[in-house]
Amino acid sequence: MTPEPSSHTAPDVRPRVGIVGAGQLARMGWQAAISLDLELLCLGAPGEAATGAGAPLLEGSGRDPAALTELADRCDVLTFEHELVDLDALARLEARGALVRPSAAVLALAVDKLHQRRTLAAMDGISVPAFAPVATLAELEAFAREHGWPVVLKARSGGYDGRGVWMCADAGAADAAMREGHDAGLELYVEQAIDLVAELAVLVARSPSGEVEVYPPVETFQVDGMCRCVVMPGRIPEPVTRQAVALAHKLAEQLGLEGLMAIELFLAAGERLLVNELALRTHNTGHLHTEASGTSQFEQHLRAVLDLPLGITTPLAKAAAMVNVVGPPDGSDPASRLQEALRVPGARVHLYGKSARAGRKLGHVTVCAETPEQALSLAREAADRLERHD
Amino acid sequence: MTPEPSSHTAPDVRPRVGIVGAGQLARMGWQAAISLDLELLCLGAPGEAATGAGAPLLEGSGRDPAALTELADRCDVLTFEHELVDLDALARLEARGALVRPSAAVLALAVDKLHQRRTLAAMDGISVPAFAPVATLAELEAFAREHGWPVVLKARSGGYDGRGVWMCADAGAADAAMREGHDAGLELYVEQAIDLVAELAVLVARSPSGEVEVYPPVETFQVDGMCRCVVMPGRIPEPVTRQAVALAHKLAEQLGLEGLMAIELFLAAGERLLVNELALRTHNTGHLHTEASGTSQFEQHLRAVLDLPLGITTPLAKAAAMVNVVGPPDGSDPASRLQEALRVPGARVHLYGKSARAGRKLGHVTVCAETPEQALSLAREAADRLERHD
Repeated sequence: MTPEPSSHTAPDVRPRVGIVGAGQLARMGWQAAISLDLELLCLGAPGEAATGAGAPLLEGSGRDPAALTELADRCDVLTFEHELVDLDALARLEARGALVRPSAAVLALAVDKLHQRRTLAAMDGISVPAFAPVATLAELEAFAREHGWPVVLKARSGGYDGRGVWMCADAGAADAAMREGHDAGLELYVEQAIDLVAELAVLVARSPSGEVEVYPPVETFQVDGMCRCVVMPGRIPEPVTRQAVALAHKLAEQLGLEGLMAIELFLAAGERLLVNELALRTHNTGHLHTEASGTSQFEQHLRAVLDLPLGITTPLAKAAAMVNVVGPPDGSDPASRLQEALRVPGARVHLYGKSARAGRKLGHVTVCAETPEQALSLAREAADRLERHD
Repeated sequence: MTPEPSSHTAPDVRPRVGIVGAGQLARMGWQAAISLDLELLCLGAPGEAATGAGAPLLEGSGRDPAALTELADRCDVLTFEHELVDLDALARLEARGALVRPSAAVLALAVDKLHQRRTLAAMDGISVPAFAPVATLAELEAFAREHGWPVVLKARSGGYDGRGVWMCADAGAADAAMREGHDAGLELYVEQAIDLVAELAVLVARSPSGEVEVYPPVETFQVDGMCRCVVMPGRIPEPVTRQAVALAHKLAEQLGLEGLMAIELFLAAGERLLVNELALRTHNTGHLHTEASGTSQFEQHLRAVLDLPLGITTPLAKAAAMVNVVGPPDGSDPASRLQEALRVPGARVHLYGKSARAGRKLGHVTVCAETPEQALSLAREAADRLERHD
């Protein structure tokens, strides 16, 4: 190995992807971009997770039209790691020929969850929980009389990881939640609470050429609305798996998806699948594919938005599990306990380089194993060691 | 996903590894460092492969004592991606307390291959091909009379990928090779040419605490002295595999290795294993472990030099193959044919971001599959598509 200076090849062979956001999803996207030698430019703030990994940064916000325009000018295609964007500005960029993938119209589904619900409810063969926009407690109580308590109150925009979602057992709880929401200036809607058999997620990529690849569905476990564990294969009956894969195909095609989409699903009694939520980007429920499947979601996302051939989604491992690493209540930094976590055999640790704060997602651990139980137990052990402060 | 500004944690929990070199091995080391959120500082030139991936760079050469001193001052531990170093300077840094892993004494084995041969020959239970230093054609001819033609003439230092190695069928060829070597100012030694059944390689990591992990041996295929393909599992009889693993353990322990070492082996008739060459760093023959085994060699290297627990080396895939992507004779850039290569199912493409030049290693492709033949055939197909200029 001689250290030979080298320079990059002609720009025409290295398209640049502009990614709105510079958090951990962009950071892992950058790792994938390095392998294929693709150029990335992240729109975000200095010090965010992707910048610590050396990803090139354009300082700015996805809500600032000028920043989006500059990103579009400097890149061949725009894509997203979050939904905090100015959709009108994106639509204007599209109108003047910029490649925005997914399109502003599709991304709108992730920006406005009531719009998402309405769109999905209008599609043939797609089930969603009953829902209704609500502005007053009386409207909410009317909904609850029809569908029963508890109900779920949700913010149309801006919620994630359990924020902007209130499970309301009765009118008292609903009243408090509505006040909280209105005080924060949020528009709200209400949903029927589903009696869950399990929660599932399925990732699908579609390229502008129309190629579609669906990942094997995974089972997800939430705590306080935040994804904590993901297991593959989950305890999902085979017909439900087939149904989830077919649904992902159908949604990707009917929406004209360009890029990657995560579909969170509720499994209710009678093997009934309802769409909980769409994310128009790489997603926490897909992290385990980096080690467990033929193509990481981060590489797949880049391939899809660049209209490159999609990668295979076949599982490489018999079973895999991912557990998030969340900042512990004492505010201590899980990174300081890396050594203990690495003692867990097979633990693939990912730390995002974010400053520690209680309740903040700071990393994840994936384990591939012979059985889902074994994978989950080892991944949990490693995540526990990172979170535990003795 | 909200873009939240974050800053890195206290320096004490993020040790910084100084790596001498900034080529593709450092680039892939940087990808591994991102996952564990470790700090890296590469010593090399702007534009080298690692810098294109955003790895922090200290401009300078491993042969410059001042550069090595600055690297040691700015890092917690020094390690290497190549052997073009000033060993005396490294020994002086060690003497004043710097952590150099592997140590200058062990790294000397990679810097001076005659010293390596002598050291290995003196070890119990290690076989190497017969060898002798040669300064004149008469000395070489005397060696050939004893061991037979052909013989292999080698440069003590500076050779790699087939450079500094001459296969000599007779005295005429040896004379020409010696002149070439002496004209280049090289010190030479001669070796017996081994009648090969196969070539193997085995990777071993040892941490300063004494933990040792050996990767499954792989079969390697060279063309013109450059590694072209690696297959796991190779066509290696089980007793030979056990012998190779035991040998790797023994060498790592007897040498007091700190870090990662690749051992290239000759398999001769009668299941006889001879050590061809040691590399005291990550190695081309270990690239496939990134996708095919429990821990990539790049992460293992970082874990070893930081004295973190070593990762498992269990294969994840039934079979895997890696094929190098080499610049084609017409000088065209394989990156311009990425799209065609990504159509090969399961091809994991790695491009190093180096400028294309005929014969230069520019990337590699790994494929995991059910059988070694299937993996090799697909990896070859993808590499061929990258190299082929229609």
